[in-house]
Amino acid sequence: MKRNILTVPIHQVSEGTDTPAQDLVAVEEPLQIRLAGRDIAITMRTPGRDWELAAGFLLTEGILQHASQISGITADDEGALNVRLADGVQIDSERLARNFYVTSSCGVCGKASIDALRAAGCPALRHDCPVIDARILPGLPRKLREAQAVFEHTGGLHAAGLFDASGKLLGLREDVGRHNAVDKLVGSAFLEDRLPLGEHILMLSGRVSFELVQKALMAGIPIVAAVGAPSSLAVETALRFGMTLVGFLRGERFNVYAGQSRLRM
Amino acid sequence: MKRNILTVPIHQVSEGTDTPAQDLVAVEEPLQIRLAGRDIAITMRTPGRDWELAAGFLLTEGILQHASQISGITADDEGALNVRLADGVQIDSERLARNFYVTSSCGVCGKASIDALRAAGCPALRHDCPVIDARILPGLPRKLREAQAVFEHTGGLHAAGLFDASGKLLGLREDVGRHNAVDKLVGSAFLEDRLPLGEHILMLSGRVSFELVQKALMAGIPIVAAVGAPSSLAVETALRFGMTLVGFLRGERFNVYAGQSRLRM
Repeated sequence: MKRNILTVPIHQVSEGTDTPAQDLVAVEEPLQIRLAGRDIAITMRTPGRDWELAAGFLLTEGILQHASQISGITADDEGALNVRLADGVQIDSERLARNFYVTSSCGVCGKASIDALRAAGCPALRHDCPVIDARILPGLPRKLREAQAVFEHTGGLHAAGLFDASGKLLGLREDVGRHNAVDKLVGSAFLEDRLPLGEHILMLSGRVSFELVQKALMAGIPIVAAVGAPSSLAVETALRFGMTLVGFLRGERFNVYAGQSRLRM
Repeated sequence: MKRNILTVPIHQVSEGTDTPAQDLVAVEEPLQIRLAGRDIAITMRTPGRDWELAAGFLLTEGILQHASQISGITADDEGALNVRLADGVQIDSERLARNFYVTSSCGVCGKASIDALRAAGCPALRHDCPVIDARILPGLPRKLREAQAVFEHTGGLHAAGLFDASGKLLGLREDVGRHNAVDKLVGSAFLEDRLPLGEHILMLSGRVSFELVQKALMAGIPIVAAVGAPSSLAVETALRFGMTLVGFLRGERFNVYAGQSRLRM
């Protein structure tokens, strides 16, 4: 049985008081899905019931129609999950090629997803730079919400905000997709030749997946703060690259999952 | 300027009283991103600042490094966004081929994303079947939460629950990815030859995107209820395929975005 939650050491900050603690985060790991030995998708998922995930994916994408088309689902040597076809079952390979849309990622399997960031030329973050006053953090979600015109009306949009080290909002983008909101925010700085954003804070209205940490790293952003929870791979990646990662930023409380040294209490 | 919110007619239900109303939903539409004329990604996004989205995507995926590599970003005839390269700029085409992981979808551009569902053999839903007592709906989020062991601890997992027409929980799956939670839930029914799930309700702990409605349709599920907001394309797809779509299911209140006839008030 693969674990689906992980205990991580954190600093719990409440009204300026910093207490070492433990937190549980949801595990996020890539899974390669194969059909008859052929790679068809990598998805970032929480381990557990992977055979159902593979079967459900193939059904809901219109590739398989009946359970009888499957002769078995087994993990192969490299950890990928291979869905074997029953004798005589033919798959529309055109559909396989055309039927997926892409979100993104440097991510390829397992630890490789972190290694791929180095290969992609992910800029190294300067440790302990910038050091910010931790008291500015509790004000960021309110500033983000106040600047978010659409969210208030629909409840349906994620927001990504760029703040300077003093907590001033520099830019905000919204989207139904969290990764798109970050891409728009980073893209605007990229097009104006303002990268790397080495003195900035990225504030997110929701949870933090690996993908969002990866995108912040590619823009050189040293501090990521979020209203929601981070995933295990988001925490691991932040630790590995020296990023400061703050989660559950609500009211006067927040958790520091990585890079505490950039926060002056 | 493309619209990023859309007004839709709904039924607002509060403590058993049903009032016709208007609601604002966030627009979700596919965008094809091209680089030097080559298709590289389709993302489901909220329209607006698409040039930033394309540039940010290419940067954060490690494909471009400097704004000077871009000579221009323009929409082409088919609505795709093409990022043109400056003279002499070479792109690592190996990276283009390998660097993306897939989430999923029948979805290809625009209206085609709905048309693709028919092409994929999406089972037609029987209108007005089942008719359920609307009073069971307010109880579903609590049943989902009570069955969700991990979520309470981490705050980081999405849940998808399958209920029968009387509101009894039949199955629950959790994942960092909403689409994965639904794939696992549908996959378990698929592997046990229990499809189509024509008498069932899918309950989601978060928001409803096109992708989740699409997956429910492929499993033949006629009623989707969610704690969060639906996107515009989720609503359009539910209307087109005769699905009942309930959003903002909180306490004794909820909004009906489509398929009101399956709910007995």
